[in-house]
Amino acid sequence: MLHLHDSPNERWLAQVDAALNDILIDHAHCEKKAAGTALNLIFHYVENAELCREMTEIVNEELEHFHLVLDLLAKRGVKFRRLSPSTYGRKLNDLVRKQEPQRAVDRLLVAGLIEARSCERFRTLADHVTDHELAEFYRSLFEAEARHHTTYVRLAKHFAPEDVVMQRLDELAAEEAQILAASEDPPRMHS
Amino acid sequence: MLHLHDSPNERWLAQVDAALNDILIDHAHCEKKAAGTALNLIFHYVENAELCREMTEIVNEELEHFHLVLDLLAKRGVKFRRLSPSTYGRKLNDLVRKQEPQRAVDRLLVAGLIEARSCERFRTLADHVTDHELAEFYRSLFEAEARHHTTYVRLAKHFAPEDVVMQRLDELAAEEAQILAASEDPPRMHS
Repeated sequence: MLHLHDSPNERWLAQVDAALNDILIDHAHCEKKAAGTALNLIFHYVENAELCREMTEIVNEELEHFHLVLDLLAKRGVKFRRLSPSTYGRKLNDLVRKQEPQRAVDRLLVAGLIEARSCERFRTLADHVTDHELAEFYRSLFEAEARHHTTYVRLAKHFAPEDVVMQRLDELAAEEAQILAASEDPPRMHS
Repeated sequence: MLHLHDSPNERWLAQVDAALNDILIDHAHCEKKAAGTALNLIFHYVENAELCREMTEIVNEELEHFHLVLDLLAKRGVKFRRLSPSTYGRKLNDLVRKQEPQRAVDRLLVAGLIEARSCERFRTLADHVTDHELAEFYRSLFEAEARHHTTYVRLAKHFAPEDVVMQRLDELAAEEAQILAASEDPPRMHS
């Protein structure tokens, strides 16, 4: 259950075919950013013991993935480099409400939606790319992303009743799909 | 080899005796901040593969320590809470030069000095506190801090020649000892 709204991905798949290496480099950056997001949540909600424990797991796992992608880049002879991020993360973060506890709910749900979309895109990539090793690599990652999605949604329920959280998740999911559908970004994991 | 300059610690030990719980709570915050520092270094110097690998290890270890301290607090019935940080970290970070590669050198050396001072303070606490369990706890941590210190100093040498790094380390160590000697902070790990 990824709670995603459908978003057409023809444009993105054409980008994958044209610039797979950029997608791979951006993937490494995304894993690093996901670790940063989880650590920031520890900083902001440090009194919530379960959140701290779960976020610690996620920091560790995202950094492990970061290194897996770096290793894969090295193996494929792709030089890792800085890359301007897609506008996706910023646009999603703009939807986060400013007041607590709504802010906590939205930060967790936005993080959860990014995990969900990454999961969906890894699955799509696993079926789409012709390179067997790469397909296996994407396949090996998507279970973790789905699990992280579930964790973020569960933690959001620490800050608001379940029905409120699920309704907000649906609203944010609709916005998320719109953001991707309207994307004019260069090839990125979330373009 | 911690490269520290001596700093009197009578005032601090009196604070330890008077407000050990605050020192413990601040300790948890310090471990979390140390994870944040290491992750920020990955973000800023992401093209340095060794740095990314070493910082990942440190993020994982600091978060592990963070949870160890939280568990210890729970066991002792001390409620974890927000606590204003000491001015130590800010004052040290104010010494970081703005231009690269000097900025990288200083960030790494400042992080390394904080690890060194933490190591020295854990050792002092291990000898000072009468509580056997707590003494063992501090003893179990100081090896890691010394190792992190060494890692940070070694990484600084990626950004400047060794003699330049060691001279700058000595300058910063002198400032660090001064900052502590002049501290008027309430009881903290680095007050």
